[in-house]
Amino acid sequence: MKNLLVAQSGGPTAAINATVAGVVACALSSGKVDHIYGAVNGIEGVLAERFVDLREKLDSAEKLDLLAQTPAAALGSCRLKIREREQLKQIVEVLKKREIAYFIYTGGNDSMDTVDKLSAYIAEEGIEGIAVMGAPKTIDNDLMGTDHCPGFGSAAKYIAATFAELERDCHVYTTKCVTIVEVMGRNAGWLTASSALARLNGGNGPDLIYLCEKPFDTEDFLKVVEEKLKTQDSVLVAISEGIKDAEGHYVSEQVQTKALDNFGHAYISGSAKVLEQIVQDRIGCKVRSIELSLMQRCAAHIASATDISESRMLGMKACQSALEGQSGQMAAVIRKSDDPYTVTFETIPVKDAANAEKKVPDAWITPDGHDVTDEMIAYLKPLIQGECRNICENGIPVHIRLY
Amino acid sequence: MKNLLVAQSGGPTAAINATVAGVVACALSSGKVDHIYGAVNGIEGVLAERFVDLREKLDSAEKLDLLAQTPAAALGSCRLKIREREQLKQIVEVLKKREIAYFIYTGGNDSMDTVDKLSAYIAEEGIEGIAVMGAPKTIDNDLMGTDHCPGFGSAAKYIAATFAELERDCHVYTTKCVTIVEVMGRNAGWLTASSALARLNGGNGPDLIYLCEKPFDTEDFLKVVEEKLKTQDSVLVAISEGIKDAEGHYVSEQVQTKALDNFGHAYISGSAKVLEQIVQDRIGCKVRSIELSLMQRCAAHIASATDISESRMLGMKACQSALEGQSGQMAAVIRKSDDPYTVTFETIPVKDAANAEKKVPDAWITPDGHDVTDEMIAYLKPLIQGECRNICENGIPVHIRLY
Repeated sequence: MKNLLVAQSGGPTAAINATVAGVVACALSSGKVDHIYGAVNGIEGVLAERFVDLREKLDSAEKLDLLAQTPAAALGSCRLKIREREQLKQIVEVLKKREIAYFIYTGGNDSMDTVDKLSAYIAEEGIEGIAVMGAPKTIDNDLMGTDHCPGFGSAAKYIAATFAELERDCHVYTTKCVTIVEVMGRNAGWLTASSALARLNGGNGPDLIYLCEKPFDTEDFLKVVEEKLKTQDSVLVAISEGIKDAEGHYVSEQVQTKALDNFGHAYISGSAKVLEQIVQDRIGCKVRSIELSLMQRCAAHIASATDISESRMLGMKACQSALEGQSGQMAAVIRKSDDPYTVTFETIPVKDAANAEKKVPDAWITPDGHDVTDEMIAYLKPLIQGECRNICENGIPVHIRLY
Repeated sequence: MKNLLVAQSGGPTAAINATVAGVVACALSSGKVDHIYGAVNGIEGVLAERFVDLREKLDSAEKLDLLAQTPAAALGSCRLKIREREQLKQIVEVLKKREIAYFIYTGGNDSMDTVDKLSAYIAEEGIEGIAVMGAPKTIDNDLMGTDHCPGFGSAAKYIAATFAELERDCHVYTTKCVTIVEVMGRNAGWLTASSALARLNGGNGPDLIYLCEKPFDTEDFLKVVEEKLKTQDSVLVAISEGIKDAEGHYVSEQVQTKALDNFGHAYISGSAKVLEQIVQDRIGCKVRSIELSLMQRCAAHIASATDISESRMLGMKACQSALEGQSGQMAAVIRKSDDPYTVTFETIPVKDAANAEKKVPDAWITPDGHDVTDEMIAYLKPLIQGECRNICENGIPVHIRLY
């Protein structure tokens, strides 16, 4: 028996399930795989042997399509970080017991760390016949080694469309008003940058865009907002949740506790709320803050067709590479050109992606620190192209449940 | 010359521009109208004679379609309430000067009050040849005299799809978590009720739905949430922004004791944020709050085709009725049956809609106070049907600008 196991990890996205659909489609068509299992809740589910039979759950092309349009992680997720060799031993015991020859793990840099450690352990222990492959996924787009990450394009499309709509909404009254919209991104500003795409069809989009890569200067921010208010009624501002001052303190720390999540990340939110209060105090005009919150990562109803298609392709690539005997690698998108947009799907050593963060290059942020350059737009624009035209029933998109 | 003037008022919606598209289409096809003007920023724009030429701005069917898919008020809006007879006199002077024979005003109950007062003034003063008609619009769905309001169905569709996505997102981890989502509605819970439509395709949707029509009992809420946490990982809660306790105090008025910003201000927040803090203090599990904020009223990218179509029809009805000499009336949707869904478009005396609020009937809220009944679902379901398949360019929907 040569069985395949796929599992999902890290934060949900609108595209991660398309990767699983790609893995399953490739396994089905290969004729080389017996059981196709999904582990529920990532590595936690592997350790607990919480498996679902994906041949049974996904027994038609339509179900694969429904999976690809279902947001979040249909197999559940986890944030378990591998810290001990004993955990790797336990995982391998489960894989052996279930006769898993191919294990595909989708996720971000923490998940790629798991793929790296697990494949290294298997090699070091001289264990034969278990290939471990990674498939990238993160709305943050901060993975190294791949041009971009599945999930990012759909989140970027939601953000672009939403900023275009918010700009229209904020424009209707003559009362002066500042609207500050907080976008996900603790350390990388890719998502916040995608708010600039709201301008592609002639709209004004956000007036100011602050990424977390540049120190945030509150006094300069207030000066620029006041200047804009002299000539326009509405000032729309996009900020990364993780904007920090010159000393490296999160703007949001001004009201947040110092809670840490399981990976030791500072638990933050509320930068926009803090700035709302500051604008109210110092400028005194009408001001409101908005958080795009979970909606930006799960808005499958406006997923990017490019993103969903590439996400499937990366799942197929990861599966195909495992079937060919590769291990310790991650499927990746390599961009050949922006316009026309062309890419290839390749594999890279997973250790190149594990635990690293790809930030926005300084050259793609305007010198004044509150906008992005044309190079950034050229990079982002292809990733939001195409509408998915999801299968809807009763007025809302249909989702599939695997457990 | 017999000219037509159309203007928009009140809060933006995803459908209000479709009403203007309907008015203009009817005026164009009638052959009875010379200039077709739009006043910028509602009655304020009428008084200031800020007019745009809509024959010129909307000189093709495609532009009318683009207008119908553009969110917010393309002619701008205002919140001016008529308080003095002098204002009515000034408005009529402008209408006479510009040879306006037909004035169509779209908006909510305050705007219908303007239509009522203006048409009454014209009748009382014996002024001939000026017909004033109202067309309904409000995401709150709280207008009397019409089965429902343009804008509501699209907001409800966004809310239903978003809750379905959020439910998927909240389900991925095994960590117990409460997610509290605040929906617009200070006095009427129609929008919050529409979160129940997230269950139409077999999803669990929100576990608890609290409308502002029923007193909110915090202790009972905590008890129900704790009970649910015993058997499920994720508890998703929908609340109206305007939920109040038994004494009539808004939940959002409760001051958060712990969170002060650097300036020592109390952290002023919405109802969901207040409940987040209470759940954290009293239950101690992971909890987060989300506000659907402006997105719910301007998400034209997921507008209801039923809503947009009806919104156009109501604009046509208002225009047609004005051309036929009616005045002081509001175009309205009258429902004939839920399934199959059939409606007629009629006119009602605008005074029946002015200044009144239609609340959710008590019988459509479950006796336990935290869900809605099948009658509510039967009422809501037809309103979100149909996908608009908006014209997109560069990966985002195209919007039109009229000024």
